[in-house]
Amino acid sequence: MFSHACLPLLLPLLLLLPLSRAEEGLEFPNFDGKDRVLDVHARNYKKALRRYDMLCLFYHAPLPASKGLQKQFQMTELVLELTAQVLEDKDIGFGMVDAQKDAEVAWKLGLEEVGSLYVFKDDRVIEFDGELSADTLVEFLLDVLEDPVELISNAMELRAFERMEEDIRLIGFFKGEDSHYKSFQEASERFQPYIKFFATFDKAVAKRLSLKMNEVNFYEPFMEEPAILPGRPLSETDIVDFVQQHRRATLRKLRAENMFETWEDDMDGIHIVAFAEEEDPDGYEFLEILKDVARDNTNNPELSIVWIDPDDFPLLTTYWEKTFRLDLFRPQIGVVNVTDADSVWLDMSNDEDLPTAEELEDWIEDVLSGKVNTEDDDDAAASRGRAGGHAASEEGGYDDDDDDARGGYDRGGEEGDGDD
Amino acid sequence: MFSHACLPLLLPLLLLLPLSRAEEGLEFPNFDGKDRVLDVHARNYKKALRRYDMLCLFYHAPLPASKGLQKQFQMTELVLELTAQVLEDKDIGFGMVDAQKDAEVAWKLGLEEVGSLYVFKDDRVIEFDGELSADTLVEFLLDVLEDPVELISNAMELRAFERMEEDIRLIGFFKGEDSHYKSFQEASERFQPYIKFFATFDKAVAKRLSLKMNEVNFYEPFMEEPAILPGRPLSETDIVDFVQQHRRATLRKLRAENMFETWEDDMDGIHIVAFAEEEDPDGYEFLEILKDVARDNTNNPELSIVWIDPDDFPLLTTYWEKTFRLDLFRPQIGVVNVTDADSVWLDMSNDEDLPTAEELEDWIEDVLSGKVNTEDDDDAAASRGRAGGHAASEEGGYDDDDDDARGGYDRGGEEGDGDD
Repeated sequence: MFSHACLPLLLPLLLLLPLSRAEEGLEFPNFDGKDRVLDVHARNYKKALRRYDMLCLFYHAPLPASKGLQKQFQMTELVLELTAQVLEDKDIGFGMVDAQKDAEVAWKLGLEEVGSLYVFKDDRVIEFDGELSADTLVEFLLDVLEDPVELISNAMELRAFERMEEDIRLIGFFKGEDSHYKSFQEASERFQPYIKFFATFDKAVAKRLSLKMNEVNFYEPFMEEPAILPGRPLSETDIVDFVQQHRRATLRKLRAENMFETWEDDMDGIHIVAFAEEEDPDGYEFLEILKDVARDNTNNPELSIVWIDPDDFPLLTTYWEKTFRLDLFRPQIGVVNVTDADSVWLDMSNDEDLPTAEELEDWIEDVLSGKVNTEDDDDAAASRGRAGGHAASEEGGYDDDDDDARGGYDRGGEEGDGDD
Repeated sequence: MFSHACLPLLLPLLLLLPLSRAEEGLEFPNFDGKDRVLDVHARNYKKALRRYDMLCLFYHAPLPASKGLQKQFQMTELVLELTAQVLEDKDIGFGMVDAQKDAEVAWKLGLEEVGSLYVFKDDRVIEFDGELSADTLVEFLLDVLEDPVELISNAMELRAFERMEEDIRLIGFFKGEDSHYKSFQEASERFQPYIKFFATFDKAVAKRLSLKMNEVNFYEPFMEEPAILPGRPLSETDIVDFVQQHRRATLRKLRAENMFETWEDDMDGIHIVAFAEEEDPDGYEFLEILKDVARDNTNNPELSIVWIDPDDFPLLTTYWEKTFRLDLFRPQIGVVNVTDADSVWLDMSNDEDLPTAEELEDWIEDVLSGKVNTEDDDDAAASRGRAGGHAASEEGGYDDDDDDARGGYDRGGEEGDGDD
C-alpha cells in the first residue's frame, strides 16, 4: 500500500490530522518547512549562546555512511525542527553539534554523551537523555521554562504535593523570598526539571509537614516519611550534595524524559525491572506490593527497582514482550542484563494470587546474591524450549535448581523458540 | 540546517534513538519498509474481515491534489504502517478505504466519518476518532485486545477501581461467569475501550460497594456516589441504553484516543473548556474546585465541561496559547466556539486566589444564559487591543458590561494585536 516514492521531509511528525474537520480548536502542528535548527560550529556558538534565553544543542555522531542510519539522523533533525517551530515564541535556540567536525566546540561546552541534547539556560547546562520525540522534548522544555521552585501556600496545594509520590521531591520552609530560600532556589536549578523542589512561607503548611524554619525535607519516591537534611540553614552545596547522594531511589519509575539515563545507571550491569500497569487492578496491586518491598529496603544501596508502566511506552510494549518473552497484560518482575538484554523473570503464572511482599523480598535476595541470574539457566531454557515448543508462560518455567517454589526462567538470549 | 533533499519514507516515526548505545533493552522500533497496510476494495474486503482476529480500516478522503495535504496523507499511511509492524504478532489487519473509489465498501461496512479508523472485532465495530499517532493508536488497540470486563476480587483491586475517578465506570455483582454476568459482558463489548466495565463475584467486595446481587452501578467521572441502574437482572439492552443516555459527563477529560469525537460533541456549538495541569499545585487546586462545581451540577444536562491537562498534549500547548491568547502555565477556564475557535476566558489574573466554586458557578450560569459569550465583546476587545497594545492577560480584560467582578475577554478571533 505504502508507495515507496520519495517523501519531501517537511511533514507533520507523528501527528497528523485526518484531513478536513468541521470543528476548530485542536489543530496539531505540521512542520512548515522553515529551517530553525542551526549548524553550530566554532565561529557561531558564542553568538548563539548570547542570542537566546535558552539554547538546546543536540550532540551527535558524524553523519553515518549507512542509508538506514542516515534516515534516522534526518528524522532526528525533523524532531528538532518541529520542536523549534512549536516553541518558536519562547526564545529557545536549537542547534546540532557534530562530535567529529565540531569536536572543539563540544569540548569547550562540555558536551560528552553522543545522542544527548544539552540545554544551556543562564549559567547552567541540563542534559536531556530521553526519548527523542517531539512530544517528549516539547514537554521537557516547557518544564525547564517553569520556575524551578513551586510555592505551596494552602492545604489544597499541600494535597497536590502529597500526591506526587512517584517523584523525588524536596520541600523547605523559609521566611520569604529574601531568606535562606535563595540557596534552596539555587540548588533547585541544578536539578530542574528532574527533581522537584517546593517551598512554603506559610506556618500552617510547615506545621502540617512538621517542618522547622529553614529546614528542608527530602522525599524519596513512594516513601511515606521524608529524610531531613542535616543542619540548618543549608547552603546550596549542602543541598546539592545531599540530593546527589540520595537520588537513586529504591523504586524508580522509568520516564520518557530520562529513560536512557536511568537505564545507563545500572547496578553491576543489571536492572531489576518490574512491569505494572497502574490503571489495571492487577498492576495496581502488584505496584502496592513493590512499594512495600521498597519501603522495607529503602536503606539498601544495592537495591533499585526500575518500574515500567507499559501504558507510558506503547511502542516498546511488543518489543519488550518479544525480547523478554513476556505477557505484558500481566504484571511481571525480572532481572535484565543491560549489555545484551538477556533476562530472567519471576514466574507468577501458576498462582491466582500475586506474590506477597515477603516472597518478593526472598526472590530479590536471591537476585542480589546472584542465586537468580540471567546466565545460569540459558542452556536449560534453550533445550526446554526446543524440546517442548511451549511458551514460557504456559510452561510455568521453574528454574530447576531453585529451592523455593518460585524460580527464574530465561526468556531472553535465544531467538525463535518457546515464543508463541 | 535541515536539508531539503527527499527522504525515502521508511523511517522511525517520532521515535528515533540517538545512534548507537552501549545498553540494550530500550530499542524503539523503526519502520522496516515492509508493506503491511492493505488497499481495501470491493473484491478483497470480505477476505480481509475473515482473515484477521481484528481488522482496522482507515476511512479517508481521496488523495488530495495539494502537495501539503498529500504529505499529510503519506504520514498517515506511515503511522498505520508502523502500527501494523509493532502489532505484527497480534493478528491485526490494517487497511485503507477511499471514500470515493471504495464508496461501495464503505457503505456496506457502515463507515461514515472520513478521518476515522474503524476496528472490526468479532461482530462489533469500534470507531477510533483520536490523535492519529502511532503511540496513541498502538495503546488504543492494545486496550481493545484486553478483556472488556475486569474482575475485582479483593480489597486492593477495589482500591485501584476507586482511584479511577476520571473514567466512566460500571461495576456489577454477579454469581459467577455463568449468570446474568453474560449480559453485562455483552454490553461491555459495545463500549470497549472507552467505558470501563468491572465485575465482582466476591461478596466482601460487593458489600464494600453496597452492591446487591445482579445490581450494576454507574460511576460518572469525578462523582462520589454512583447511579444504580434500575431493575435487576438487567438485559444487555437495559445496560446499553442506560450508558448511552448518561455517557456525556458533567466534567470530562479530553483524551488523545477520542479527542475529536469529544470535541464534535459540543453543546450548541460551544465548549466550556478548563485547562489545568494536575501535576501542578495550582492546577490541582483548580481541578478540585471544578470537581465541586461538577458535583453540584451533575443533574444539569446543559453542562459538560471539557477538562484539558496540557501535559497530555505538549504539541498543542503553544497552539492553544496562541489561538486562545492564554498563559497555560496557569489554570484557565473559558468558552470556545468550535466553528471558529473564537473564545472568551474568565479573568483570573488579578487575584492571588483561584475563584471559589460559587464564583465559578456564577460565571458558568452567565455562560449558559448567554450573558458571557464569544461574540459580544469582539469589537471592544479589538479596539482595546489596537489602542493600548497590551497583552490581554496583563490588562485584566474585564468585560465592560459584566456585572460581577469577573468577566470575559475575547482573546480569539483577531490576529496580531494584544499578544505578547
